[in-house]
Amino acid sequence: MRDELSLIFAALADPPRRALLARLAEGEASVTELARPFLGEMSLPAITKHLKVLEGAGLVIKTKDAQYRPCRLNGAPLRDASRWMEQYRSFWEESFDRLEAYLKTVHPPKSEKLQGARRGRKKQ
Amino acid sequence: MRDELSLIFAALADPPRRALLARLAEGEASVTELARPFLGEMSLPAITKHLKVLEGAGLVIKTKDAQYRPCRLNGAPLRDASRWMEQYRSFWEESFDRLEAYLKTVHPPKSEKLQGARRGRKKQ
Repeated sequence: MRDELSLIFAALADPPRRALLARLAEGEASVTELARPFLGEMSLPAITKHLKVLEGAGLVIKTKDAQYRPCRLNGAPLRDASRWMEQYRSFWEESFDRLEAYLKTVHPPKSEKLQGARRGRKKQ
Repeated sequence: MRDELSLIFAALADPPRRALLARLAEGEASVTELARPFLGEMSLPAITKHLKVLEGAGLVIKTKDAQYRPCRLNGAPLRDASRWMEQYRSFWEESFDRLEAYLKTVHPPKSEKLQGARRGRKKQ
């Protein structure tokens, strides 16, 4: 059996599954309701399979209403995945800082340009 | 070809690949250096394959030092994945609030217990 974090990341590694989560973020829905907007692109068995992967990762929970059993988005696994990523935050902030520093050398901010122009004028 | 976000999540959906990232978070390393602590559990071709998946997702960059070509962790894809998750933050905070509310009913905080005890004492 795969570890939880791997199950979560694997479940998210697919655009249709992320689309199903986005739909569930709007509110609970039965499998039929969930499937409706996707039926042009995917078959019902394909959608059911995607939902099973999301359920396996704990991202979707089928509530225990005997009549209706709607699907609900469960945020907790996303919290765990997000926490795992947080430990690398310094790396993405660093790479952003490097990009920003580079862009400043290519396109200096307006204030610096103006100061340069003023300095130029004084010399004249 | 898979979309970038899917490539990133798929690359993270594997404990050995997350272990390689954790090693690279400590600093740049050549493939040989990277492989050393893992050789008991994985073969060198397996490690090279994992590194290729990480490179494909942009999580690892091979720097262009002709002699040495060390691998470097690149944080930018983790920023993108983290941003995607942020849109669901309300869902994980909500589920945490529900858990906290439940735990409070099972184990009330000490201050509430003390107040209860005081009220009890007054009655005596």
